Amino acid sequence: MQKTVILTGDRATGPLHLGHYAGTLKNRVALQGTHEQYLLIANMQALTDHAGRTGLVRDAVLEIALDYLAVGIDPDRTVICLQSGLPALAELSMLYLNLVTVSRLERIPTIREEIASRGFGRAVPAGFLSYPVAQAADITAFRAELVPVGADQAPLIELTNEIARRVNALAGETVLPEARALIPEAGRLPAPDGRGKMSKSAGTALPLSAGPDQISAFVRSMYTDPGHLRASDPGRVEGNVVFAYLDAFDPDRTEVARIKAHYRAGGLGDRAIKRRLEDLLQELIRPIRERREVFARDPAQVIKILRRGTERADQLTSETRSRVFTALRVGET
Amino acid sequence: MQKTVILTGDRATGPLHLGHYAGTLKNRVALQGTHEQYLLIANMQALTDHAGRTGLVRDAVLEIALDYLAVGIDPDRTVICLQSGLPALAELSMLYLNLVTVSRLERIPTIREEIASRGFGRAVPAGFLSYPVAQAADITAFRAELVPVGADQAPLIELTNEIARRVNALAGETVLPEARALIPEAGRLPAPDGRGKMSKSAGTALPLSAGPDQISAFVRSMYTDPGHLRASDPGRVEGNVVFAYLDAFDPDRTEVARIKAHYRAGGLGDRAIKRRLEDLLQELIRPIRERREVFARDPAQVIKILRRGTERADQLTSETRSRVFTALRVGET
Repeated sequence: MQKTVILTGDRATGPLHLGHYAGTLKNRVALQGTHEQYLLIANMQALTDHAGRTGLVRDAVLEIALDYLAVGIDPDRTVICLQSGLPALAELSMLYLNLVTVSRLERIPTIREEIASRGFGRAVPAGFLSYPVAQAADITAFRAELVPVGADQAPLIELTNEIARRVNALAGETVLPEARALIPEAGRLPAPDGRGKMSKSAGTALPLSAGPDQISAFVRSMYTDPGHLRASDPGRVEGNVVFAYLDAFDPDRTEVARIKAHYRAGGLGDRAIKRRLEDLLQELIRPIRERREVFARDPAQVIKILRRGTERADQLTSETRSRVFTALRVGET
Repeated sequence: MQKTVILTGDRATGPLHLGHYAGTLKNRVALQGTHEQYLLIANMQALTDHAGRTGLVRDAVLEIALDYLAVGIDPDRTVICLQSGLPALAELSMLYLNLVTVSRLERIPTIREEIASRGFGRAVPAGFLSYPVAQAADITAFRAELVPVGADQAPLIELTNEIARRVNALAGETVLPEARALIPEAGRLPAPDGRGKMSKSAGTALPLSAGPDQISAFVRSMYTDPGHLRASDPGRVEGNVVFAYLDAFDPDRTEVARIKAHYRAGGLGDRAIKRRLEDLLQELIRPIRERREVFARDPAQVIKILRRGTERADQLTSETRSRVFTALRVGET
């Protein structure tokens, strides 16, 4: 039986953090046995809003590759590849741009919000407005059937499938499969102060390379229940950052349920729940950090892995490009 | 001494016609001795407003290649190449899209006019709005120094140079040369009825494959001076289509001046000036038509020429792509 093709990846704007681990990296490690998985390091997409910071984007490429290897992505079972090394993605993007109107792009809710949140105003780079089309090129080029995305990004998969159907209609045959969004059940991790989500740009992210002291300080800084002044007081579990993290990382669900009941009833101090969480995070991150350090000592080896993956991805995406161009009769014959 | 690099070409939307010959093809034949000349058959650009008509665009590719060879373009001295065979153009386009804002593109006068004239309204394909960026990718990828364009297209060369300067500034070195617009002195040929210019879409074009009867009928249909009823009447030369064509094609300037004076004074009939023009056009087109027929009998040979040129262009444009990506540090190292 053929494995389902899954495409995922990350914009190359910086190293990944614990939020990425909980939200997607853990899943990717689990999926590599059962799926044909491609991880795309999206350095071209990063440039859509970092055009003036190409050095930052370049540095992020290696950092992200290190993060993948550190969390247990196995390059023999998952293809790790670099977007700028795949010309077929640009070729398909340029073709697809003709199949989508400017106003269709302007109507995509995430695009509108991101334009507002980045303060672009009227100065939206054409590449930024077009990135959903480039993403459709990525997804279709890999002939991905499953694409893990946040709930807010489902409209991007919609657009991808619109383009795929348009290509298939123009070709008079099914050249491109449609893709399905895989929306994770877990929400994103909160920031330690409970205001918003963990985010590198807001300075609230715990990197996967964090050392023991950094992990300690991170947990210590977490907000719990402001009304829970003494250990003997009853405490609130909802909106309590420590419990959000225990829900995300503690494998012993029964014990977490018991601790929650105890905390609610009173008699369980913040220090105790934080100690439990810290122990968990130290145990979780230590092997990741150690593997990361080993790989970081040999960047040439990491680049070799990335090149090998990019070559494999180049074969696949170039073949799709040829199929699409031939089916649409774009070329000299 | 190195030859100046000149890039020109045609959108692949149909065979070329006498207007193209007068406006640009004749010049291209002349330039191939003195310049390093590239002719780009722009099938990807054609798709920006012909996305649903890929068959028409595909057919036009061979027709245009035939036209080039028929007018005397020598594939050993001019590189004839096909846009869709040059992935570096798409890669550079995707990069440059990040350096240009949507509103900058919307402000380009030709883009505004073309959006209006094509009746796109709000339904402008994203690829159409972006085509000036793709054109900048073409020009810079070939490191063209000279680009023949109509006067209305000078703003597109402006945009190209803006992008080149931005790339050079980001790179901290001169990676891309700036290009100069070469604006032809001759205006475009009028349609036979004097209303507007010769245009394939308006059905007023004389193709370069026209036979003797078609050339005859074309000249017969030309408007002269509506007030010039008898040969003995004085006639107007200005706005007289036949004289516009004599100005464009008659190599004997002195004789044309003499004929104009005679026509103005009266005593010279329309039939006489039309006969002169017809003789000229029959003589001009006959060898073009004949060469075109010879090449058309061997399309495999034409495709071979096109592939050879595209390979040469691929080397050049891929090298530029590498230079730009390396200078901007786009990639894994």
